[in-house]
Amino acid sequence: MIFEAIYHRAADSYCYAYDDNLIHIRLRTKKDDLQMVKAIHGDKYDWEHTVREKPLYKMASDELFDYWQAEITPEHFRLRYAFELVSGEQTYWYTESGFCKEKPKDPLKFFDYPFLWSSEVFKPPGWVKEAIFYQIFPERFANGDPSNDPADVRPWEDSNPGPHDFYGGDLQGVLDRIDYISSLGVNAIYFTPIFEAKTNHKYDTTDYLKVDPHFGDIELLKKLVSAFHDRGIRVILDAVFNHSGFWFAPFQDVIEKGPGSAYWDWFHIKEYPLKYEPKPSYHCFAFESHMPKLNTSNPEARKYLLDVACYWVQECDIDGWRLDVANEVDHDFWREFRKELKAIKPDFYILGEIWHDAMPWLQGDQFDAVMNYPATEAIIDFFAKETIDAEQFSHQINRLLPQYPQQVNEAAFNILGSHDTPRLLTVARDEKRLMLAALFQFIFLGVPCIYYGDEVGMRGGQDPDCRRPMLWDVEEQNQELLDFYRNLISLRKKHLALQDGSFRIIYAQNRQLVVQRQHASEQLTICFNHSEQSATLDFAFQTESSPNILMGNGTYQMAEKQISVSLPPFGWLVADASL
Amino acid sequence: MIFEAIYHRAADSYCYAYDDNLIHIRLRTKKDDLQMVKAIHGDKYDWEHTVREKPLYKMASDELFDYWQAEITPEHFRLRYAFELVSGEQTYWYTESGFCKEKPKDPLKFFDYPFLWSSEVFKPPGWVKEAIFYQIFPERFANGDPSNDPADVRPWEDSNPGPHDFYGGDLQGVLDRIDYISSLGVNAIYFTPIFEAKTNHKYDTTDYLKVDPHFGDIELLKKLVSAFHDRGIRVILDAVFNHSGFWFAPFQDVIEKGPGSAYWDWFHIKEYPLKYEPKPSYHCFAFESHMPKLNTSNPEARKYLLDVACYWVQECDIDGWRLDVANEVDHDFWREFRKELKAIKPDFYILGEIWHDAMPWLQGDQFDAVMNYPATEAIIDFFAKETIDAEQFSHQINRLLPQYPQQVNEAAFNILGSHDTPRLLTVARDEKRLMLAALFQFIFLGVPCIYYGDEVGMRGGQDPDCRRPMLWDVEEQNQELLDFYRNLISLRKKHLALQDGSFRIIYAQNRQLVVQRQHASEQLTICFNHSEQSATLDFAFQTESSPNILMGNGTYQMAEKQISVSLPPFGWLVADASL
Repeated sequence: MIFEAIYHRAADSYCYAYDDNLIHIRLRTKKDDLQMVKAIHGDKYDWEHTVREKPLYKMASDELFDYWQAEITPEHFRLRYAFELVSGEQTYWYTESGFCKEKPKDPLKFFDYPFLWSSEVFKPPGWVKEAIFYQIFPERFANGDPSNDPADVRPWEDSNPGPHDFYGGDLQGVLDRIDYISSLGVNAIYFTPIFEAKTNHKYDTTDYLKVDPHFGDIELLKKLVSAFHDRGIRVILDAVFNHSGFWFAPFQDVIEKGPGSAYWDWFHIKEYPLKYEPKPSYHCFAFESHMPKLNTSNPEARKYLLDVACYWVQECDIDGWRLDVANEVDHDFWREFRKELKAIKPDFYILGEIWHDAMPWLQGDQFDAVMNYPATEAIIDFFAKETIDAEQFSHQINRLLPQYPQQVNEAAFNILGSHDTPRLLTVARDEKRLMLAALFQFIFLGVPCIYYGDEVGMRGGQDPDCRRPMLWDVEEQNQELLDFYRNLISLRKKHLALQDGSFRIIYAQNRQLVVQRQHASEQLTICFNHSEQSATLDFAFQTESSPNILMGNGTYQMAEKQISVSLPPFGWLVADASL
Repeated sequence: MIFEAIYHRAADSYCYAYDDNLIHIRLRTKKDDLQMVKAIHGDKYDWEHTVREKPLYKMASDELFDYWQAEITPEHFRLRYAFELVSGEQTYWYTESGFCKEKPKDPLKFFDYPFLWSSEVFKPPGWVKEAIFYQIFPERFANGDPSNDPADVRPWEDSNPGPHDFYGGDLQGVLDRIDYISSLGVNAIYFTPIFEAKTNHKYDTTDYLKVDPHFGDIELLKKLVSAFHDRGIRVILDAVFNHSGFWFAPFQDVIEKGPGSAYWDWFHIKEYPLKYEPKPSYHCFAFESHMPKLNTSNPEARKYLLDVACYWVQECDIDGWRLDVANEVDHDFWREFRKELKAIKPDFYILGEIWHDAMPWLQGDQFDAVMNYPATEAIIDFFAKETIDAEQFSHQINRLLPQYPQQVNEAAFNILGSHDTPRLLTVARDEKRLMLAALFQFIFLGVPCIYYGDEVGMRGGQDPDCRRPMLWDVEEQNQELLDFYRNLISLRKKHLALQDGSFRIIYAQNRQLVVQRQHASEQLTICFNHSEQSATLDFAFQTESSPNILMGNGTYQMAEKQISVSLPPFGWLVADASL
């Protein structure tokens, strides 16, 4: 038994409450080293009468490790436990003190989950699992009101935006196109920032309490949110609280008054008078002097920002905030943020922008989800860039899943591109590859988000190129792709197994992949052939009846407990084999 | 290279801010597998100009692993980093995405510490490192006022307390003995509960706002705290917020009025009318029906308890709370608790009772320390029970240290016995073994606490036997032991290396152990011979001059860069070889 590979800690994704009654425990072991893992568990205060055994099952495997999981309902909300490990002829016990040959006499040194508090369970809003998001970059979606355009807007048809260009997109434009958005079937919108700022992307807020005049005003925003709500579509906005813009009045006050300013401590000033070159003499987002970093640990600055966060919910009934540069803001601010917003709207969605391991923000006290960049990367590498094969892809996905509690994975915000990255079609190079990537996005654990225009075949490299004006000319839109997206959306909305089911990669060889998702009696099997050649995939298949093909372009043959799926080049198939 | 053994996560004890400028990063690798580990680090927003390399040093090794550490000061408070690993001829890079042969081109997938917020650094009060605690169980320390005795107190000389007996100890008794306490040299007192309750141990509070009448009253408590403060001794009390007593008025109101009671939600009631057998129909501490569990997630209950916590600080100027059953109370309560108390008294000490891995409570937002039971156990096993040898002991200690940030270890509350465990002398069987255990406690990282009476040779088995009345008869007290404790206390207070220095076990063989502690130019070496035989310990010793023996009963001989220490049976030596 390879002790060095075995990992457990009674915290984070290795021991957590999944809901008000259920605790998940996980164990990591060296790949293929153990044949059996059991949890011995009970209530620490009445061990003798409550002790039970439960086998763990292998939830995932990657290149190095197997990951095991068991779900346990502790009657008295307390869980003490240890693991019994079997590798060949060897049996060991694993407790908080380490490994031992003999079964420990008393459970004092076992692992411990002290008490399951309902108030501390990580519970994302119920609607999130059902959500399909559409991301809008307002300056580039549609110009509905030329009267509010900035000076010198470029013609909508110019598809080569510079970093500082304006095109005149606005909220009226979105409202004008609401039937199109609704026709996609999406049920949630994520807007990048809409508050007053100097740039086209608006990540340099000058007034947090004012809709940017080039986009509209608060009345129009209310009307827009209400129109979305009428169509069953929720709306989340972008909160830029890590930093303000240079022209934010409190920062201007600091520039003017220096240490005497009432806002001095709202920022992180290292030297006054301020210097801007070569690096600013105050903390910024990155080293961008036009984005001074806010001091969210200052009580007044904090109160101001929390009031801003609540104001837009109370005034316009928005359904969530996406938090820009969320990991560079202090945890304590986000905890307060969550409390205040959930008090106003219990099913409010809090989505953090974090590119890295985000476990410290996903304990139930801060965010409901993060933008799932590590998964994005794996999907792009396999489906778009083709730098990894199916087995490597499977390892990457299976490495990520055990890093978070299950409900975190279920609420993760899965994007394949955004205003910060090259567009999916450009990276994938063609529609065939894009379609398989999008299919995976829609059948993966977590919430898919479509970046505006990806559904009609828009291209674009690194920003600002990925921020081209939306392609509205029906002739130029890829209608086949649009239909494909509509079908994907409809598929996901129809099947609970895709929203809320277990997820397993059951086949990963060369460039072929099979995923199975299950919820109660519903079982969907999704097969991918990401290759220029036709392929036949043979794998075990436990079902009573023949599966029913829901979507795709392949065929299959059943033998006893075996299936053989034939797929054309870049073919795929979604089959329903519900039990 | 054994990849499976390598562990790092940019959180908890593996990446944390040690102070307002310094970040510690750690890496775990298979024991003796790697010869070199380097951190490649920089600012993510200006990688090219800020990238640096820093070797990690081996901070500790246990049976399975080596633990490496480096300290880094990120100029712009952001740290992105990866590890370069060398094992024999092999070199690998380790990032958040895993292992790779080639140096990654860009740092996007590196590990990330997003921003060092001063407000979020784990900072225990400065005085804690200098503290030496003395624990008092008030019912058994001294009876200074027979007029407040409960009925039927037992004679003080009866050293066989039953679980429900009273002896009449009180606060006046403590005050009467303050010169004795002060003469020990301790500078902090931890009192088990003193508030009104039915039992002798007072863990079943009936009135949180009243000193137990058998102990005294608030005026006497003020006088006592003030008398301690006059002698430079801080006072911490025991907060029992996980559960109340059965006779706590709100619980009585629930019994009487049921769901209509204003206090219904202050507890966790499963069934009404309440049942008490075989298990209570409400959550309790353990299954103790006389200790109903409090619902600290109820806003009114929470406010009441927080007000209680603040009241005793504001009224009596106490210096800390020890939190009973701290891990079964919700995190959110403790976060609020910390904020309110630190606002009143910034150097207030918050000490949680947690017997297990306590990392989730030691992130800087909840406790300053926990009672360090895992270390207690290792010390008892080696020095008292002799169930492990020096090498195993060294492995156990070295396994614990990397599990927490350094400042957590520095503020840990190290006990060798308490009102909850058999007394040290009883477990150790004789004074020789006890003394070596106590010596280790005093030269270990963290804060030593002496359980009343251990210093004069009191014995006692599992509670209630460990709660015998304090031995005041000078004839019966072990004066040699008392002198030894006074010397230990004085040694620790004199040497910064023992309060605030690095800690390394540099020799661990059979039953011999050598520890080195260093702070700035001060270097202390402590040698233990925990055996019936004399022993000679030969080890490398880097010093310019001959070490100066501060305490102990051994001798040494120096050769070039080598020292040979001779110790009698159960001998020991503390030597100063400051640079």
